[in-house]
Amino acid sequence: MAPKAPKAPKSPIPNLFFFLLLILSAFSAAAASGKLRSRRPCRRLVFYFHDILYNGENAANATAAIVGAPAWGNTTVLTGMNHFGDVVVFDDPITVDNNLHGPPVGRAQGFYIYDKKEIFTAWLGFSFVFNSTEHRGSLNFAGADPLMNKTRDVSVIGGTGDFFMARGIATLSTDSFEGEVYFRLRADIKLYECW
Amino acid sequence: MAPKAPKAPKSPIPNLFFFLLLILSAFSAAAASGKLRSRRPCRRLVFYFHDILYNGENAANATAAIVGAPAWGNTTVLTGMNHFGDVVVFDDPITVDNNLHGPPVGRAQGFYIYDKKEIFTAWLGFSFVFNSTEHRGSLNFAGADPLMNKTRDVSVIGGTGDFFMARGIATLSTDSFEGEVYFRLRADIKLYECW
Amino acid sequence: MAPKAPKAPKSPIPNLFFFLLLILSAFSAAAASGKLRSRRPCRRLVFYFHDILYNGENAANATAAIVGAPAWGNTTVLTGMNHFGDVVVFDDPITVDNNLHGPPVGRAQGFYIYDKKEIFTAWLGFSFVFNSTEHRGSLNFAGADPLMNKTRDVSVIGGTGDFFMARGIATLSTDSFEGEVYFRLRADIKLYECW
Repeated sequence: MAPKAPKAPKSPIPNLFFFLLLILSAFSAAAASGKLRSRRPCRRLVFYFHDILYNGENAANATAAIVGAPAWGNTTVLTGMNHFGDVVVFDDPITVDNNLHGPPVGRAQGFYIYDKKEIFTAWLGFSFVFNSTEHRGSLNFAGADPLMNKTRDVSVIGGTGDFFMARGIATLSTDSFEGEVYFRLRADIKLYECW
Repeated sequence: MAPKAPKAPKSPIPNLFFFLLLILSAFSAAAASGKLRSRRPCRRLVFYFHDILYNGENAANATAAIVGAPAWGNTTVLTGMNHFGDVVVFDDPITVDNNLHGPPVGRAQGFYIYDKKEIFTAWLGFSFVFNSTEHRGSLNFAGADPLMNKTRDVSVIGGTGDFFMARGIATLSTDSFEGEVYFRLRADIKLYECW
Repeated sequence: MAPKAPKAPKSPIPNLFFFLLLILSAFSAAAASGKLRSRRPCRRLVFYFHDILYNGENAANATAAIVGAPAWGNTTVLTGMNHFGDVVVFDDPITVDNNLHGPPVGRAQGFYIYDKKEIFTAWLGFSFVFNSTEHRGSLNFAGADPLMNKTRDVSVIGGTGDFFMARGIATLSTDSFEGEVYFRLRADIKLYECW
């Protein structure tokens, strides 16, 4: 009887190959469904912006003005019922600390609309337009601002220049206010998509 | 003559290596250009929201009010020419079925602007703000709403909380309406980016 | 002395394996942090849109109207102080060249708000709604428009139909204007996310 030929060792290469394909396809599925996305910001920035609302007497200082109001209101003073229906346009200085008179690094420009009768809450659409040695470009924001909450999150829906194609979350908080004229907001901006 | 040395079998490893690199780079290119992205929603939600427009007589029930109008209109009644120029702010209850009096799971808050003289069409900027046991957080929307169409798609431009960084499409349809005072909209929300 | 056994050739497979894993994880990290994203547009489109603002005398031609104004302004004529506070709604024809009377491929619909006292600058929220043989669907835009700048970038925050889930940058420039009534804007749209 011829001696049995020794069994050829099974090549490890096909196994390796399929194992890697498996990793690749798992990775591919994860990428497609977004599971690989990190919840750690790729960029974080903190700024303050300062809103001084025109009230009929402060034209020189005002950075914001009422430009729409419901039938029962007007555009000089904020309307009753938690300002429901008041549309406010603003062009507020942005600073890196909470000092209104600190050097502005840009302007927060856009609008908010008070949108609830029972409590103060607003809808925000605005941009941070930067024009400093440190930052050039803009960040665009939209979202609900239930302004009686200690913090509230709005979406960073896009960016240009240094913030090309950015997306993220901005956590707003009211850092200070004086009556219904001066509001200082802190924006803790966390970008999760950086290009 | 010395016997010819048997030809060494060509190692399969370099081939495998380059093959895998090829796959990797194809994959990389696909990921960069977005071709891997799936058109299957990673999350889908259907809600109804209920808009009751203030018309001068329904202050108690109204969830929406006209706050801007063109020179030829006013903020009490919708303007002629398909309401062109009317700006409406709303804070509408969201329900899971089409019953206005069902338990609200959140509020639809934002604004729409009628923006065409010839037909009814509007531009929408709003948020779904959830505050139920099932959902916490918000979804932010923007887009054109040609409201005479059976369905119309607006963009989900961001989200917070349970909807962290979401993007997608919301297909709106008018589920019911009564005159120009009550509108019930169905929102079929399909998220394609889930984090 | 027994002859030394020839040293077994070290298998190249484990090395290859770890090398590939290294590539994979580097790739994975890059994908998660966005570094793989390309700054080359996956799609590019150029359009013109034509804004004719109602001024009290051009009702037949006008494609836009003032619908909000500050306390010191009105909705018939643009307000002083660089129109600060004026809210304008528009439904402008989109053409592929700079001819106002060219065949429209869609409508630019939305609003802008003049938001600065010292210079002309505005905040834009609008959509391109296409309805031509070439394009169906919509692109949604938001951002600051410092309109005295030769070019300014706004964000493409979403899209529907042919532009499903698009994101990108639109570079706007004022192609022509006549007084404060006619504005022709060129939109150079670069999409960086295509699905």
